[in-house]
Amino acid sequence: MIKVGVIGAGRIGQVHITSIATRVPDAVIKTVADPFLTEETAQWAKQMGVEKTTKDYHEILEDPEISAVLICSSTDTHSPISLDAIRAGKHVFCEKPIDHDVDKIMEVVHALEGTDLKYQVGFNRRFDHNFESLQKTVAEGKIGKTEIIKITSRDPEPPSLDYVKVSGGMFLDMTIHDFDMVRFLAGCDAEEVYVQSANLVDPAIGEAGDVDTAVITLKMEDGSIAVIDNSRRAAYGYDQRAEVFGSLGMAAISNDSQSSVQISNGKGVTGEKPLFFFLERYMDAYGKEVCAFIDAIVNDKETPLNVYDGLKPVLMGLAAKKSSEEHRPVKISEIM
Amino acid sequence: MIKVGVIGAGRIGQVHITSIATRVPDAVIKTVADPFLTEETAQWAKQMGVEKTTKDYHEILEDPEISAVLICSSTDTHSPISLDAIRAGKHVFCEKPIDHDVDKIMEVVHALEGTDLKYQVGFNRRFDHNFESLQKTVAEGKIGKTEIIKITSRDPEPPSLDYVKVSGGMFLDMTIHDFDMVRFLAGCDAEEVYVQSANLVDPAIGEAGDVDTAVITLKMEDGSIAVIDNSRRAAYGYDQRAEVFGSLGMAAISNDSQSSVQISNGKGVTGEKPLFFFLERYMDAYGKEVCAFIDAIVNDKETPLNVYDGLKPVLMGLAAKKSSEEHRPVKISEIM
Amino acid sequence: MIKVGVIGAGRIGQVHITSIATRVPDAVIKTVADPFLTEETAQWAKQMGVEKTTKDYHEILEDPEISAVLICSSTDTHSPISLDAIRAGKHVFCEKPIDHDVDKIMEVVHALEGTDLKYQVGFNRRFDHNFESLQKTVAEGKIGKTEIIKITSRDPEPPSLDYVKVSGGMFLDMTIHDFDMVRFLAGCDAEEVYVQSANLVDPAIGEAGDVDTAVITLKMEDGSIAVIDNSRRAAYGYDQRAEVFGSLGMAAISNDSQSSVQISNGKGVTGEKPLFFFLERYMDAYGKEVCAFIDAIVNDKETPLNVYDGLKPVLMGLAAKKSSEEHRPVKISEIM
Amino acid sequence: MIKVGVIGAGRIGQVHITSIATRVPDAVIKTVADPFLTEETAQWAKQMGVEKTTKDYHEILEDPEISAVLICSSTDTHSPISLDAIRAGKHVFCEKPIDHDVDKIMEVVHALEGTDLKYQVGFNRRFDHNFESLQKTVAEGKIGKTEIIKITSRDPEPPSLDYVKVSGGMFLDMTIHDFDMVRFLAGCDAEEVYVQSANLVDPAIGEAGDVDTAVITLKMEDGSIAVIDNSRRAAYGYDQRAEVFGSLGMAAISNDSQSSVQISNGKGVTGEKPLFFFLERYMDAYGKEVCAFIDAIVNDKETPLNVYDGLKPVLMGLAAKKSSEEHRPVKISEIM
Repeated sequence: MIKVGVIGAGRIGQVHITSIATRVPDAVIKTVADPFLTEETAQWAKQMGVEKTTKDYHEILEDPEISAVLICSSTDTHSPISLDAIRAGKHVFCEKPIDHDVDKIMEVVHALEGTDLKYQVGFNRRFDHNFESLQKTVAEGKIGKTEIIKITSRDPEPPSLDYVKVSGGMFLDMTIHDFDMVRFLAGCDAEEVYVQSANLVDPAIGEAGDVDTAVITLKMEDGSIAVIDNSRRAAYGYDQRAEVFGSLGMAAISNDSQSSVQISNGKGVTGEKPLFFFLERYMDAYGKEVCAFIDAIVNDKETPLNVYDGLKPVLMGLAAKKSSEEHRPVKISEIM
Repeated sequence: MIKVGVIGAGRIGQVHITSIATRVPDAVIKTVADPFLTEETAQWAKQMGVEKTTKDYHEILEDPEISAVLICSSTDTHSPISLDAIRAGKHVFCEKPIDHDVDKIMEVVHALEGTDLKYQVGFNRRFDHNFESLQKTVAEGKIGKTEIIKITSRDPEPPSLDYVKVSGGMFLDMTIHDFDMVRFLAGCDAEEVYVQSANLVDPAIGEAGDVDTAVITLKMEDGSIAVIDNSRRAAYGYDQRAEVFGSLGMAAISNDSQSSVQISNGKGVTGEKPLFFFLERYMDAYGKEVCAFIDAIVNDKETPLNVYDGLKPVLMGLAAKKSSEEHRPVKISEIM
Repeated sequence: MIKVGVIGAGRIGQVHITSIATRVPDAVIKTVADPFLTEETAQWAKQMGVEKTTKDYHEILEDPEISAVLICSSTDTHSPISLDAIRAGKHVFCEKPIDHDVDKIMEVVHALEGTDLKYQVGFNRRFDHNFESLQKTVAEGKIGKTEIIKITSRDPEPPSLDYVKVSGGMFLDMTIHDFDMVRFLAGCDAEEVYVQSANLVDPAIGEAGDVDTAVITLKMEDGSIAVIDNSRRAAYGYDQRAEVFGSLGMAAISNDSQSSVQISNGKGVTGEKPLFFFLERYMDAYGKEVCAFIDAIVNDKETPLNVYDGLKPVLMGLAAKKSSEEHRPVKISEIM
Repeated sequence: MIKVGVIGAGRIGQVHITSIATRVPDAVIKTVADPFLTEETAQWAKQMGVEKTTKDYHEILEDPEISAVLICSSTDTHSPISLDAIRAGKHVFCEKPIDHDVDKIMEVVHALEGTDLKYQVGFNRRFDHNFESLQKTVAEGKIGKTEIIKITSRDPEPPSLDYVKVSGGMFLDMTIHDFDMVRFLAGCDAEEVYVQSANLVDPAIGEAGDVDTAVITLKMEDGSIAVIDNSRRAAYGYDQRAEVFGSLGMAAISNDSQSSVQISNGKGVTGEKPLFFFLERYMDAYGKEVCAFIDAIVNDKETPLNVYDGLKPVLMGLAAKKSSEEHRPVKISEIM
């Protein structure tokens, strides 16, 4: 039985606490730490079987009974707490992104060197039933050699302007998931990226120095071409589709909706719109990624998403940003 | 080159005239006869390449150059004109139904005996791309041995009350197409029928002695079960679906719409409703059935739907009517 | 906090134990009773937080701390244990069917009279996301006045012959779920039933006196017509669809599959088959029905499926059996 | 009644001859000219009602009875014959592309100046039921302001190497249709194009100096972004899809197949692959474009696709070629 500490008890922290409490028989949460922990959240954690709550995450790192931590705090703390945790000898599950600064990620890479510690990054979509099946289909060779990968990723609505300003920009905040997905589906890395971006959703996003709409083309190491289209706002909900085209055919996934009801009337045949909220859409995936992390510790396996899987999408995001700014194709190798 | 006469130049007559003019290179229409022929229709026929128009169909039967006739006149004239045409030595394509009276159909059966004349009944749906593919799929054994056949057949809107009164009732007017389809898909005849019917669409239809809604269960000769559901009015258009379930799987067809456009917005994902009007839905099938008729003559083949294929659905319709009235399962053998 | 006892720790018992342990914050399982309880199951129950296990369910009924029981034992014990539990003053959740014998169900009805006890029957499908949305769509009037209800319900494979022999026959074992669904979707009761049944899947089922294929037509109290088609074996998995047709349109639900992946290649465009196993298909619904039961107790509400909802489908099943045997339409009122 | 001459009686010429013969009541084909005219084709033309056949197209241009010509000869003859025909005072329908050389297209533009002659270019896809409905949906504002346009266009199999060598390259031969479609759907012109291309289908295509796979990003004049993905070979047939995403939602079209049959079995749920051959897929569109041309003459209307609509996609294609070669975004204004 693994004892776990959770650092950060906000929205995503609570998702992981619930997953461990209800889906992971091999692990229990001993301590939850959050500097802004409310009485209400502490109560809720107790009901979920959490032994102890604190405002100071060092209590988790200093606890010899705890062998693994989940870092669910704000993005700027991901890399420093990762370093602290690794130095304290804890296995680490870290929410994405590890950092927006490549040097800081490299510090985590170096800290892990020579240890037996497991490190996993939270790119949850790889555990989604649709993306997982798509990747499996491609990896099994059912569509032959991959030639074109297409990802559509559109949020239901833009984040708050306050968030936009600290988000690192759309490519590092939102597209980063799609960059991970491209790597997952392609089974190789990107070599070069070209971005055509625009500010069409809300002028205030442009004034804040960010874009909200983009088509991103990637040349992959195996010669195939990937293309991502992003928007910060889709009137019909959270749009998460993908398609892989290869020498023997094509595999594609569509959106999930709450039910399959279709109404036929004088206006047409209407089905439900896609699930609107990312937590609803990916709830099961969040549970599965945590199961995989605990499984890697218990059975001494590689985590499915290691620290390099955390690094690469950041490089792609930075290259995308550069391409958008300099209006030219940018090689990933220009970044490091 | 076959010379053809068309008897009846109403809606369906004009469909067949157009088909022969544009799709059948082996046939020309020499004469069109219709007692109520307007000047306008005569003009139109000329433009379609028809040589001659007349109000008297005997001119067609007496013309030795004409070897085949299409009977597209009112239902009550189908069997007498069939008899006249057969006696005049013409091949006959007759719109469905041959007659509502079994004895009159049997006269046609007897008249054909000993001749080499081709006789085809106009159950157009067999030539529809969807139903044709479904039948082929089943006949090729792709779903194994047939166990359950389901047909949904709903009209967009009820016919006029005047028509209802002379239609022979819903089972002989509308369901008769579905009875033919059951035979086509099953590859065998029905043994027994049970009807649960209702008058839900328009009380006036009930007052006219007819029903407008029904679920019809058939026991087939091969032991499988077929079920048809009918309504005289579907708010979303003409609903024409079928499904065949067997020992190795299921094959199903859905409706056709004008285009594949789907609009996703805050209300859901909306595609087009099915094609509304039967002529629009089955236009291509009407063309193909006439091609098949001419082909049978030119190449001396069996017509795909002979006089017995015209008789059987009438027997099924009469049995259905009896079941609806006597509220019990009725064997087809009770009818003849 | 409600303390609950679970009687029967087989497959479905374990499903409910898991649901209460992970999804119902207002309830804990104090005791699990099963005469055939293995050490392994007892272990598992402990891990799920169950306080006590026993082979004698009377220990549950005699425990004053336990206010509610879930009856998940074999069908023949449902009604006697229901009676025992009611007399012991416990709220009861009873798996379907309460009994195959109407008199025994009536004893339960009478035992409940004058008590404040909650009684819920386990027709889980009402809690499925698809069926729930369909019912809501119809109840909200979106398709107008209901005219035709169609349910397709096909099992992936037939049960063992041993089970077939004690199952009460297909109508009471399998179709009973569909009878409940017809009532749920129609919002009213059935008046009459007609069955066309066959033995097409396995001759041994016929030799055991049962059928394996059927089309069942029901006349509903509101004048609408319902039709169910059943098979004990679908090569493509568990087929659970429904369609409601009304004066303003139609609403339909389709099957669920594990993912939305579609592969396009030279053979066509292939999506996944429906989920094969009923526990997989309805796992979430099993959780929701137990939540609803606890909610009814905690908040003193009507259970969504009371004892009469347990009785009615049994009456329909017995009428169906009679119709199948006597080959005629049978009124539900003939049964009681 | 318009008298028409057809220049070029190959595959596409025969399609247009058939359309005029069977679908256009206001026009007849007087003469068909083809330097390689076979006896067989001449025979066929006669049967279609063509009055005269010749090897010399000047006979058409010199015939004062003929007021319109259809140019269906090889690509290199499109612009010179256009010029000849315009100088002879004929209305012109010209297959795409007018020319690969902008100067030669400009000669046609200038020749038309000051005349009343109708000129139409054969971008048939605008007349396809799916693309037509999609454009209408967008133009009616149903998805709000357009932000992203996506076109998938993949051929079933690559053309012969001989053809590849004279085709002008994939962008001018194949993508040119998609460039026209982008303009049609956007309702505005492109400003800049960026191409990521590859040679993945057949090395021989690369050796011939061409590409066979590409993702093409376009910045449109209204600020929206368009993206086209192309392949010269799709194992599952002719892939012709599009999607337009806007401020109020999304509209998308999918492929057409021969029928809607879906087979469910142990392997999944399989529908038909898309129609394989472009003539099959767009047959109706070919008919409609010719109807529109004749209609423009008879009713003195603008043709739906004038000479500038022929010019613009060539400019886009040349810019795409330049982008592919120079590996940078290229402005359309760099071309002229």
